[in-house]
Amino acid sequence: MKSGLLYGIGLGPGDPELLTLKALRVLRSAAVVAYPAPDSGDSFARGIVAQWLDRGQPEIAIRFPMRPGPPPQEIYREAAAQIEAVSRAGDDVAYLCAGDPLLYGSFAGLLAALDSSVPVVIVPGVSSITACAAAAGTALVQRDETLSVVPATLPEEELAAALAGIEAAVIIKLGRHFPKLRRVLQRLGLLETAIYVEHASWPSERVAALRAIDAETVPYFATALVRRGGAIA
Amino acid sequence: MKSGLLYGIGLGPGDPELLTLKALRVLRSAAVVAYPAPDSGDSFARGIVAQWLDRGQPEIAIRFPMRPGPPPQEIYREAAAQIEAVSRAGDDVAYLCAGDPLLYGSFAGLLAALDSSVPVVIVPGVSSITACAAAAGTALVQRDETLSVVPATLPEEELAAALAGIEAAVIIKLGRHFPKLRRVLQRLGLLETAIYVEHASWPSERVAALRAIDAETVPYFATALVRRGGAIA
Repeated sequence: MKSGLLYGIGLGPGDPELLTLKALRVLRSAAVVAYPAPDSGDSFARGIVAQWLDRGQPEIAIRFPMRPGPPPQEIYREAAAQIEAVSRAGDDVAYLCAGDPLLYGSFAGLLAALDSSVPVVIVPGVSSITACAAAAGTALVQRDETLSVVPATLPEEELAAALAGIEAAVIIKLGRHFPKLRRVLQRLGLLETAIYVEHASWPSERVAALRAIDAETVPYFATALVRRGGAIA
Repeated sequence: MKSGLLYGIGLGPGDPELLTLKALRVLRSAAVVAYPAPDSGDSFARGIVAQWLDRGQPEIAIRFPMRPGPPPQEIYREAAAQIEAVSRAGDDVAYLCAGDPLLYGSFAGLLAALDSSVPVVIVPGVSSITACAAAAGTALVQRDETLSVVPATLPEEELAAALAGIEAAVIIKLGRHFPKLRRVLQRLGLLETAIYVEHASWPSERVAALRAIDAETVPYFATALVRRGGAIA
């Protein structure tokens, strides 16, 4: 029997309308749907496309403990085993990824754990990086400029080193790391023009000057846009 | 009269199926469609969505000279004036952007030239960066890693400086800059595992080990994926 495919499909940053035509087609046609989820409660990725999961497709929820650090390898190994079994039976699996499957997120860990007998197809998605720029209405980079994407989860000195020489940067995963990021931006002279974007493309989307943000209110899905010379446009 | 909106809509990397539902809706409902084009010949952006331009919407082709360097300001100024006139008449304009509107490309220049009376809405798109990773089937970054996006158009020493400390990088706009990039990657010890992706998501898509590529064949829309320790998965 022909092996079923594993599709890693990018769902975009949160607005269901930012799904691609291809992601929607694959989602609707796959025999089984899989997605990451917290150890209890709803999956963010599944929530983006819930309105299109009305055909009763079997679902595999891969539950990750909600604490810092990489998820245990055994969770990826077990998820891979479930997906391998579906593939061996000749059925396709659509693995739902918020944003893009290959830019942070759980899909890389799943791929690494997966038996090479499972054919994989990736459907790229709109990443939160460009969705944040869209929310702010400001260009990220143009012409010969270099863009750095930096997680705020880095230790303070590494974060400072990563941002020291930038032309333009997007700093992701702010949450409880916000006070540290603020200190680093201040030290590097990047604080005054930094833009803060929370929940880009969601109904709760919020854009503000970063220097005016109360650290207590910053969620994980918050992002900073920084340019060495201020905004292009 | 209420001013018409200027939508900057990201069309994704080239496969029409990588359009978002929102981009398609905006494209179909806008009174006027505008796009960048070479001084003679077809617009790449328009080509992505040609099948949906069957309603006879008026089109504004903004023609840029096909030579290196930033396009003359007067082209942006003239395009802005045309779009301002449509907006003043109360009609919406959809400006077509290959990839994402705010990640390189002509839209930032247009925004900078535009009168602030024109309300702007950005619809983010799938960028060629993640489309290249999807084509190669390899994760770009995970967890605490930093990603650098670097144009190969930089002078050799600047290119080397931009790539010297990277964890992971996507190098774009290869074309005639390929031999220079190859020298830099070799010097930095990054050549052996570098992946070459040409025309991601197009029918002519091609993925190969970068070290095996003939410089004579490299088009502008070619990209290199580089990681300091080789592939994640």
